Amino acid sequence: MAAKEFSETHRVTFYETDVTNTVTPAMLINMIILASEDQTNSLGVGAKMVTELGIGWVVTQYKIDITRMPTNDETVKLTTRATCYNRYFAFREFWVHDETGQECVHIESILVTMNHHTRKIVSIPEEVITPFETEQVKMIPRLGRPKRLDDADQLMVKDYRVRYFDIDGNGHVNNSRYFDWLIDALPMSFLTRHRLVSMNIRFENEVQYHHDVKSEAALVTDSNDPIVTKHHILLDNGDVATEAECHWQPIMK
Amino acid sequence: MAAKEFSETHRVTFYETDVTNTVTPAMLINMIILASEDQTNSLGVGAKMVTELGIGWVVTQYKIDITRMPTNDETVKLTTRATCYNRYFAFREFWVHDETGQECVHIESILVTMNHHTRKIVSIPEEVITPFETEQVKMIPRLGRPKRLDDADQLMVKDYRVRYFDIDGNGHVNNSRYFDWLIDALPMSFLTRHRLVSMNIRFENEVQYHHDVKSEAALVTDSNDPIVTKHHILLDNGDVATEAECHWQPIMK
Repeated sequence: MAAKEFSETHRVTFYETDVTNTVTPAMLINMIILASEDQTNSLGVGAKMVTELGIGWVVTQYKIDITRMPTNDETVKLTTRATCYNRYFAFREFWVHDETGQECVHIESILVTMNHHTRKIVSIPEEVITPFETEQVKMIPRLGRPKRLDDADQLMVKDYRVRYFDIDGNGHVNNSRYFDWLIDALPMSFLTRHRLVSMNIRFENEVQYHHDVKSEAALVTDSNDPIVTKHHILLDNGDVATEAECHWQPIMK
Repeated sequence: MAAKEFSETHRVTFYETDVTNTVTPAMLINMIILASEDQTNSLGVGAKMVTELGIGWVVTQYKIDITRMPTNDETVKLTTRATCYNRYFAFREFWVHDETGQECVHIESILVTMNHHTRKIVSIPEEVITPFETEQVKMIPRLGRPKRLDDADQLMVKDYRVRYFDIDGNGHVNNSRYFDWLIDALPMSFLTRHRLVSMNIRFENEVQYHHDVKSEAALVTDSNDPIVTKHHILLDNGDVATEAECHWQPIMK
């Protein structure tokens, strides 16, 4: 039995794109979360029902593979499927296709259910997963670990303070903000000359309103094709909030 | 002869709303700019054509009146009209209506055409305005000037550095970012307990990538109904980039 797929179309607006008129990683994540929320709502297991159980879905990792990031004013098809799960982890996939049916982006993600009060991971309740007809498995696919920054790295560092508009309807920093902080640590001269081809990002610790965070990045010097950057976001106390590995290719002009 | 109206529907997404699930002022502005770009494109006088003339449209002021800010997942109707113009100024209006036809927001704006190279205001070329069937007038409506901050004010201050993703496809800081900077200067405890009912904002000087700006705000102490806040954004050299006046009402819970 295969998990139910859900698709919807989405028109890319200028405010979902960057200086190169290309969808930003943050907005890509917002779009696919929209699709998964629409699927969960359509199956009657949306945020409201899940909240009533005292839990919430939390994404712990995304692995994003980008063939071609969509551009301003394209109408794309967003597709998602809760592919498989075990007692504690759910594995959800997403696809973005363009109007010609070409795959632009494929995203794999790992989610857990967290108790609202204790903020601890709980086993996934049957009633929130059954409607997706998700395959129950022993082991969900592993997405690998992003390469870690170490003392030998030459760091690029920028500081960020969490702002009012970074907080979403759940009262938490919206997941998409971490993408902006991670990538903004790289210089504009690099970002306008390279396109992101893949990204592996793990969420470790939550950032709160008014926290000051540090986004540190380094180039992996022993890789040229693709060009690899390592990233993390550090909390005030030095804990890692998020870590990521990005692969890039030069843009041919 | 009345100016041509243009309307389109828009579904409000969670990432266009804040912690109270209400559309943010920044995203409101993005939505209505989308509608006006769709109108200009449909009339064959879009960004591409205007750029070929060596000019660009620049908004110098918005006056926003909010009956009810739309919330997450509402489908709203965005309407716009280039109401009137004279040699140097165009006056454009926008409306946001909800699904019951109720007016949520009315926005008046003043635009000029600017030479791309000299960055100076030029008289509006006939060919970019004719298709809108806009009334030619001696004087366009005045939107008034936002109340100014002065030395007696007790300031709330926050600093912002322009980020890569603040830059839009035109190579400039996206107009919507000024709204985030202006409003984020107020404390969260104020923002979650008050709703914005009107805003008058003037753009004076452009902010560039990597600039550090200061957002300063103060409460107008001799006004209680509505509650009034004064704002400006200062460049490094002390010049005012943007100034604004906001009117608020307490949210009844």
